[in-house]
Amino acid sequence: MAKINEDLNREREKCSFNVKELTILMDGGPEKTKERKERENFMISKRDTYAGIPEDYLSYKEQYEKAVKKSVIVFGLVRRLQEEGKTTIHNYRDVLGNLLRASDVSTGFPLALHYIMFMPAIINQGTDEQTARWLPRAWDCNIIGSYAQTELGHGTFIRGLETTATYDPITKEFVLNSPTLTSYKWWGGGLGQTANYSIVVAQLYTKGECLGVHSFIVQVRDEETHMPLPGIKIGDIGSKLALNGINNGFLGFNNYRVPRNQMLMKHAQVLEDGTYVKSRNPKLNYGAMVFVRVVIAFDMANYLSKAATISVRYSAVRRQCQSKAGEQESQVLDYLTQQHKLLPAVAACYALKITANKLWDTFNTVNEELLAGNLQRLPEIHALACCLKAISTYDTATFIETCRLACGGHGYMHSSNLPTTYSSAVAACTYEGDNTVLLLQTARFLAKTWQEIDNETGKLTPTVEYLKTTKSKGFSHKWLNTTDNIVYGFEVVSMRKIASCVQNMQKRVASGMTFEDAWNMSSIQLVAAAEAHCRVIILSTFNSEIKELTKTTSPELKRVLSQLVDLYSVYWALEKLSDLLQYTTINHEDVDGLRSWYEDLLTQLRPNAVGLVDAFDLKDEMLNSTLGSYDGRAYERLLEAALKSPLNSEPVNHTFHKYLKPFMLGKL
Amino acid sequence: MAKINEDLNREREKCSFNVKELTILMDGGPEKTKERKERENFMISKRDTYAGIPEDYLSYKEQYEKAVKKSVIVFGLVRRLQEEGKTTIHNYRDVLGNLLRASDVSTGFPLALHYIMFMPAIINQGTDEQTARWLPRAWDCNIIGSYAQTELGHGTFIRGLETTATYDPITKEFVLNSPTLTSYKWWGGGLGQTANYSIVVAQLYTKGECLGVHSFIVQVRDEETHMPLPGIKIGDIGSKLALNGINNGFLGFNNYRVPRNQMLMKHAQVLEDGTYVKSRNPKLNYGAMVFVRVVIAFDMANYLSKAATISVRYSAVRRQCQSKAGEQESQVLDYLTQQHKLLPAVAACYALKITANKLWDTFNTVNEELLAGNLQRLPEIHALACCLKAISTYDTATFIETCRLACGGHGYMHSSNLPTTYSSAVAACTYEGDNTVLLLQTARFLAKTWQEIDNETGKLTPTVEYLKTTKSKGFSHKWLNTTDNIVYGFEVVSMRKIASCVQNMQKRVASGMTFEDAWNMSSIQLVAAAEAHCRVIILSTFNSEIKELTKTTSPELKRVLSQLVDLYSVYWALEKLSDLLQYTTINHEDVDGLRSWYEDLLTQLRPNAVGLVDAFDLKDEMLNSTLGSYDGRAYERLLEAALKSPLNSEPVNHTFHKYLKPFMLGKL
Repeated sequence: MAKINEDLNREREKCSFNVKELTILMDGGPEKTKERKERENFMISKRDTYAGIPEDYLSYKEQYEKAVKKSVIVFGLVRRLQEEGKTTIHNYRDVLGNLLRASDVSTGFPLALHYIMFMPAIINQGTDEQTARWLPRAWDCNIIGSYAQTELGHGTFIRGLETTATYDPITKEFVLNSPTLTSYKWWGGGLGQTANYSIVVAQLYTKGECLGVHSFIVQVRDEETHMPLPGIKIGDIGSKLALNGINNGFLGFNNYRVPRNQMLMKHAQVLEDGTYVKSRNPKLNYGAMVFVRVVIAFDMANYLSKAATISVRYSAVRRQCQSKAGEQESQVLDYLTQQHKLLPAVAACYALKITANKLWDTFNTVNEELLAGNLQRLPEIHALACCLKAISTYDTATFIETCRLACGGHGYMHSSNLPTTYSSAVAACTYEGDNTVLLLQTARFLAKTWQEIDNETGKLTPTVEYLKTTKSKGFSHKWLNTTDNIVYGFEVVSMRKIASCVQNMQKRVASGMTFEDAWNMSSIQLVAAAEAHCRVIILSTFNSEIKELTKTTSPELKRVLSQLVDLYSVYWALEKLSDLLQYTTINHEDVDGLRSWYEDLLTQLRPNAVGLVDAFDLKDEMLNSTLGSYDGRAYERLLEAALKSPLNSEPVNHTFHKYLKPFMLGKL
Repeated sequence: MAKINEDLNREREKCSFNVKELTILMDGGPEKTKERKERENFMISKRDTYAGIPEDYLSYKEQYEKAVKKSVIVFGLVRRLQEEGKTTIHNYRDVLGNLLRASDVSTGFPLALHYIMFMPAIINQGTDEQTARWLPRAWDCNIIGSYAQTELGHGTFIRGLETTATYDPITKEFVLNSPTLTSYKWWGGGLGQTANYSIVVAQLYTKGECLGVHSFIVQVRDEETHMPLPGIKIGDIGSKLALNGINNGFLGFNNYRVPRNQMLMKHAQVLEDGTYVKSRNPKLNYGAMVFVRVVIAFDMANYLSKAATISVRYSAVRRQCQSKAGEQESQVLDYLTQQHKLLPAVAACYALKITANKLWDTFNTVNEELLAGNLQRLPEIHALACCLKAISTYDTATFIETCRLACGGHGYMHSSNLPTTYSSAVAACTYEGDNTVLLLQTARFLAKTWQEIDNETGKLTPTVEYLKTTKSKGFSHKWLNTTDNIVYGFEVVSMRKIASCVQNMQKRVASGMTFEDAWNMSSIQLVAAAEAHCRVIILSTFNSEIKELTKTTSPELKRVLSQLVDLYSVYWALEKLSDLLQYTTINHEDVDGLRSWYEDLLTQLRPNAVGLVDAFDLKDEMLNSTLGSYDGRAYERLLEAALKSPLNSEPVNHTFHKYLKPFMLGKL
């Protein structure tokens, strides 16, 4: 191994806790760490097979072609694990997660949706017969599927989808059509040139009646030739901010026929004669949406950990400005303003990971209840997943961009991997439900809950229990600068915000507004209330889980994790200070105290900054960053990366002779 | 012209003011509008000559090559205007600005620095003899220059630059060297493969003494062959988040010799025998930095206007969700949450443009004073330019990204032009001075000013006069929800923040901390104080200038512009509410009132939203956006753009046969 940068060596020497202990704690035990590392190393060992020119230098088409090449290697490995019995349908998400984390996913995979959406749709919505017929072929990648729901003109509002699937009882087929331009399917991953099948969500018509959206397994390309089938218009939607290997596609239908048994009929059915049989409970499909949103929260923790690792290590290596004349320039990590940018991001990695873990457990509990026919907690968990998806994606994007900008100009270089990390993570703010729309869904649940509290009807589910407690207790005690008190303060803020929204809406309705208009006029504040609720969830989960987890850790680790929780809570208290000033007893002196505490916490955590990101255990092959490598040789790597630019392969570019020289001579 | 989208037609019909009147007002009169339009049309008429595949689909190398091709056309037009006497050295920045606004600058120009940095450096720092020798050649583009200051390891701290220029009195030459890896010049625009000359900033050594950084005109490539000269290591630094046509380069020296008369010697000189003659006033160079930062503020207003136009028009066209059952889906612009995302951005376009205009005038006044030997206002204008650059770039990047996200998934498509607009604008947060560093420079000036007020020494310059007024007056009157009062509230906030910083520092120093450590420990709050000062400047300038400007406008325009100022001030009052709660008499009821006022203003401005962005007068060729075109045919354009993706040029990509099919058959 090359020599390690001296500043980084010193950072690691002065770290006060055992980095491995923290890694194992976050993985969930030494066995989990071992498994994860095995899978990651397995994947990394195959990286050479698809190395080459970095994606940033390739054309759009070449990026796709490289992504296909990578995909068959990565998913070929997944298939090998399947054959060896090391992954089954039950744990393949975990396995896939570890492998994808370790593969170079800078542009995404055109096969991702096949695993994440196509197969799960068949499992969740297919009859036993359909599953038996389609799943083995999909599992073996004998067919490649996509998922086509969103249309050019329709995203959020699923009921507004325009694609039609009209049942023809004579031929026992559905006839698919795209009646308008806006009804073209748009965004399906892998749909452009890769998949030969797709789940298609369309308005079902039978016996002259529209029965709302249903899912269909639709073949889009010939299995032998891969040519688009007659009646299908399909292609690539074009270049995006990032993730250009995903091959998002469009899809239009012209009287395209699909056999009756390719409508997914686990819940609702169309009988041979065209009779429609309703689903027992249409809400059962909510489970899948909740699931995807929890997965997104984990993704966000991963993206942010990457950006935090890169920017903290680089800030330890980078020296700029003399704070004292004659001395060596200072590590930029020593500047309080830099700590203010990076350390809350580090804390957020831990907070998001731990909250997602907890939500995951809750989700599994609720899912078991669902299967047993108990739907009581479904609205709660749905509301929770909505706001957590929104806030985790928004916070992650914001923190990553702050980390990127904290690396100055070099953070603008693709070789730092910060631009791609941002551009990829920020996509999650709009996919799988626009954040504002999701927060309004959470707000709708909160408003309903509040009215139940007001009317003293119904039993409250655990994550909103605090609304009732704080309502009766209020915030009347003297403010204390402690995390427990901050968490309580946020609970009161959330309660007061939702109360005030409900009150405003009632006032507006009483003055003659329709409910819809009153809702719209209150929506900025409803979004704020849903955010406040989510802050309560994250802060209180982080606080209580760390208390629980550190009962069995070394005192050194306990100390730094407590500081991290404090930093996170004080950071958000200062960010949301206007709420606390309005709804709690915090006064001017308390605020000064809060600021000093924050500055002290930054100073206390500063010596452990590198240790805290080392604990994410992201190998250089996974970071893929000139600025963030474990050895800290940032400048050497920047120059090495630059020399790989295709422009540097020849001393004079041909455009000099063709354009520049004639222009300089005044001849052009 | 194709049919215009009906929703957009309706928006334009209900607009309450004359859009042209507003355009002319912002241009500064009908003559200016005419000139601008002429130049823009001139440039647009030449667009066909460099059209072709959109940059987003090209490889990195192809992007550069296309940028060179574009550059010689665009700057060839500039040269033609020169020859026709339509532009001179005195107005070429205006001319260039108009032309660049109208050309498709998505990846930037490798010749930009030649105009923006190379020539100005010669003009400002060269002797008459040097100017006479070099400027005509540069002006004719007979030579192409770059500007090399930043090094791989050195950005902010110019005194820390490592490149050396050692005078050799025997040959009367400077010997340039790059003693370390970190001393490599890095980032120079056009430096990679395009320029054959560059200004190089290096540590001057003569007679064994280091005399600090000085500028040199350095030839880097052969004028005939364009080959790098011996002793020069030069190349491209590699791929970035955006602006990949700029051809940022690196540059290293190995005993490279430059004649004595190529050190720019207007201010300081090295005589033939090596004697060093000091500059009369080293601060004279500050003028150039101030100038560039004012130009950046204008750039930001342009970028943001683009994003605002695209997202407002698209939000008028896009319909999503039924707010009432059975009705048509609503225009997303009708949602208050959408207005909350877009209308403050629209207001910010006007606020930034007007503040930059005002600063521009102030700068010119101060510059004349400078030339007359009066340096009194230099620190003030420098502090002002620093914070305005920081806040205008930060606000612009944030608002653009909000606009982009407000367009949902389609805002992630390159064809919307929102990704490139964001990625290009955000670069300004780190170039020409990192924003945090700049805000700390402003804070240093404010702290000094505060001490002068405390000690009642010195005369205050105009833009900080308010600190003295508010200090004596305080904020004791009852809060009023008016813009004038909000502006005053922000003045008090700024004053209290800087006062509290100075006090904290004094306390820390009194307790034994060094000044440097006390400064560092206070730096988060110093940055906040500088931001608060800048908010005062922007808010008060916007408020007073609009009052002045609307004295002569139609009452309809006056009404909408006043609403816009109010919206901007209320928006920031709510964003910075914790400050107002701490430092003014605003109470809970006032805050409720402020929120209602804000919601009302959004509703009032909603019908004029499209008119307000139409007034930016950005032609479709300049917007370059599928979502934002004047006719609102967003969906048609999205599909048209998608069909241009090179992946759609063949029904089956060759990777199907090479990788995908063998994989699907289990043979790979």
